[in-house]
Amino acid sequence: MGKKKADSEKGHVFNIDKEQNFSKWFTEIVNVAELADIRYDVKGFLVFRPWSVLAMEKMYYHFEKALQRKGHNPHFFPTVIPEENFELEKDHVEGFTPEVFWVTHGGDKPLEKKLALRPTSETAIHKMFSLWIRSYKDLSYKTYQRANVFRCETKATRPFLRSREFHWIEAHAAHKNEEEAKKQVNEDMETTHEVMHDIFGLPFVFFERPQWDKFPGAKSTFAADVLNPDGKVIQQPSTHLLGENFSKAFNVTYEDEKGEKKYAHLTCYGPAISRIFASVIITHGDNKGLRFPWKIAPKQIVITPIKVDGKTLEKAKELKVRLEKENISVIIDKDKDSRPGEKFYYWEMKGVPLRVELGPKELEEGKITIYRRDTEEKEEFREKEIVRKVKEIAKEYDKNLIKEADNLFEERIKTAKNKEDIKTALDTGKIARCGFCSINKEGEKCAEVIEKEMKATVRGKNLKGEKPEKTDKCVICNKPSKEIAYIAKEY
Amino acid sequence: MGKKKADSEKGHVFNIDKEQNFSKWFTEIVNVAELADIRYDVKGFLVFRPWSVLAMEKMYYHFEKALQRKGHNPHFFPTVIPEENFELEKDHVEGFTPEVFWVTHGGDKPLEKKLALRPTSETAIHKMFSLWIRSYKDLSYKTYQRANVFRCETKATRPFLRSREFHWIEAHAAHKNEEEAKKQVNEDMETTHEVMHDIFGLPFVFFERPQWDKFPGAKSTFAADVLNPDGKVIQQPSTHLLGENFSKAFNVTYEDEKGEKKYAHLTCYGPAISRIFASVIITHGDNKGLRFPWKIAPKQIVITPIKVDGKTLEKAKELKVRLEKENISVIIDKDKDSRPGEKFYYWEMKGVPLRVELGPKELEEGKITIYRRDTEEKEEFREKEIVRKVKEIAKEYDKNLIKEADNLFEERIKTAKNKEDIKTALDTGKIARCGFCSINKEGEKCAEVIEKEMKATVRGKNLKGEKPEKTDKCVICNKPSKEIAYIAKEY
Repeated sequence: MGKKKADSEKGHVFNIDKEQNFSKWFTEIVNVAELADIRYDVKGFLVFRPWSVLAMEKMYYHFEKALQRKGHNPHFFPTVIPEENFELEKDHVEGFTPEVFWVTHGGDKPLEKKLALRPTSETAIHKMFSLWIRSYKDLSYKTYQRANVFRCETKATRPFLRSREFHWIEAHAAHKNEEEAKKQVNEDMETTHEVMHDIFGLPFVFFERPQWDKFPGAKSTFAADVLNPDGKVIQQPSTHLLGENFSKAFNVTYEDEKGEKKYAHLTCYGPAISRIFASVIITHGDNKGLRFPWKIAPKQIVITPIKVDGKTLEKAKELKVRLEKENISVIIDKDKDSRPGEKFYYWEMKGVPLRVELGPKELEEGKITIYRRDTEEKEEFREKEIVRKVKEIAKEYDKNLIKEADNLFEERIKTAKNKEDIKTALDTGKIARCGFCSINKEGEKCAEVIEKEMKATVRGKNLKGEKPEKTDKCVICNKPSKEIAYIAKEY
Repeated sequence: MGKKKADSEKGHVFNIDKEQNFSKWFTEIVNVAELADIRYDVKGFLVFRPWSVLAMEKMYYHFEKALQRKGHNPHFFPTVIPEENFELEKDHVEGFTPEVFWVTHGGDKPLEKKLALRPTSETAIHKMFSLWIRSYKDLSYKTYQRANVFRCETKATRPFLRSREFHWIEAHAAHKNEEEAKKQVNEDMETTHEVMHDIFGLPFVFFERPQWDKFPGAKSTFAADVLNPDGKVIQQPSTHLLGENFSKAFNVTYEDEKGEKKYAHLTCYGPAISRIFASVIITHGDNKGLRFPWKIAPKQIVITPIKVDGKTLEKAKELKVRLEKENISVIIDKDKDSRPGEKFYYWEMKGVPLRVELGPKELEEGKITIYRRDTEEKEEFREKEIVRKVKEIAKEYDKNLIKEADNLFEERIKTAKNKEDIKTALDTGKIARCGFCSINKEGEKCAEVIEKEMKATVRGKNLKGEKPEKTDKCVICNKPSKEIAYIAKEY
């Protein structure tokens, strides 16, 4: 058996300092926990293995449920987009064509027209909007699709964080006017908070991106940044005001109440499930391995019989059935070749939230021991209480995981008064918060200075309504600061 | 508002004879019920609209649940397959390359190697099997993925039935020997029955396909045929014994109990959800439109307030909440501009199984009327019984829908003694059942006669163990018949 395989087997104890040695931690856990395989024959294309797919399916479920509740209807749009559609919006084509994979042949014949593998689907979906939307009564027209998208990344790829094919949701909507479009953007940010923070337990800041860092074709871009232990941020869901740019390019119009033809105001929102998965494992993992939030854990409970015999297995199965009736997912470790301690380490590394230990003593006394992956504490109670107890502990477990992540995140945002402060913050793995002249065009020069001198980028303006003091100055040009901006390193 | 849109609005009564005018019925219902839009700018690529996606998501759910219960683990494999992998299995490459879409460029640069858009994923997955499978302890190794696949069809495309991109599940497995592989094929056929017949209500026959009609690269192919009202069959899930063909090409080996290196026996199984969806609407639909089986209906209940006022809407919402707690999906028709009759027709056309009518009389008396889409009967009962009653009726509804489909299907299989009988059967929209020399190589000539003279194909041998009488002769060559074969027209 090859080395790779052996590492993921029981008996091998995972122990890497996540904070000190983040890059190694990440590479190893992806491999050892069998989340993905990077050995596929096409560079940058990942094979997603069951332990990640089970979690990602649950992540899809929570995002889709929230979107449907808010009136978004599910669609499947084609994976391919004809070149001529793709090129209708000028900024969009400039932003995306360097990264587009092109389909040029069907069988041995060249296609009549080149087809782009969608890097994102505005140019497929807006074409259909122009056919579907007629009247103000049709608006707001809210759609989404679960899809895989493709980008021929020139930067180095990394499992889940940056791949050439990734799995996401894209929600596209058309509105009567800018006011309605802005409401949608706010709703998208709320959805992000409800799902990504309250369920997945991820802390982030939502920024309005500087004008020079918008989605290609957008009027404004709003994006959530999550922070890694190495002090680098990852952009997670972003939502965009597209204004009338795309509706003019694709002729998405409607008749208003007075019978006048108007262009719709479009928005789009894109949570990249496979990338958010990276943030889930990075944010919650510890030196022993993974720790999954309860609602998206591939398996929520592992039952480990201390002695794998008929009687114990029977009891384990009985408990499994009882828990599964309550929609709690359970795995029984039936392995006879490993010692209990080895099983414990293995499932801790895999991030299963709770472990039910079932030994001869427990069987005899009608008791049960539950081990929590977060606090590493054990609790004993009567077997018949199992469902109630598990539900109770699960709530505590999630609350604790979220609190821990929130606290750590807050500590890592540092207010900076000058360039030196910013450098110190960045060097110690933090995000710097500082006065900045402007995230509009006029601030671009200062942003370039930051990029050159600090290898960092201006992430934008915090959307929680922070305002600079009158005396605040831009850390770079010293002009009066129009906003408080955040500066961070990114991959 | 354009004509297309108007057709799908309330007030337009759908009424097309499905049996007599099947082709028109199908085209119209896809459009009027807003299942899909065929106006996308790339030929053969379909836009799937919410009403079909909601149903297909439920279909995915039931198939995935069954597969996971039987030990298949979910994966996401890449959409692209490098040309050199694709070409490793000789028969496979011959069978599929004429239909492959090729990705040749990334940005404006040609790729180092051409990439196939997967038409099916054997050549992606078996490569990974060769890395993952080491020992007999790893077997049977059972995987699946939910995926979209691509085929540059040369035949005319038709929404859901034959598209250039379709949505399916493919389950791939590796086994110790042929015996285990055959067990898998049987399990796949059982899964098909459990899900496609017992939940989706589709009658079909599972055939062993003739040797000249196998999956490219397979040793044997087993496939379910469903029959359309025009007398043509559609191939639905198929499962294949791949023997050692692919494991030799991709080096999928394991060490057996004695430490000897052996080739694994591979199998694959592919339910095409978007095509099965076509069979669902075709099989259950009637002259008034769609009729969805309960468990996969996009919405299971529509509540139509007879008068759309505050009090009635409040009650409707209360009922909706109560039903949704029981996982029953509900839509309330709040439209004030349509008459109740128009709403009734509309939701009947859309195939919602049950309609709850809520009028002033019902409100006052604390009663409720439920209309069944299948029997077209109404029943009145006390409002507080609603959940119990709905569950009861839903069971009856499904039973009835399945029975109706089964009965019709049985009538349409006709035993034929000679060529004339076959022709009569085919001309009246039936499948012919007859003596046939052999589905092995030696029967191919007789199959060619059938294709030439009757424009029909030999579908294969029924897997329910039917055996010919000693006196049975092949309907074409008159030699003793080795099997009972089925002959049908296909698209």
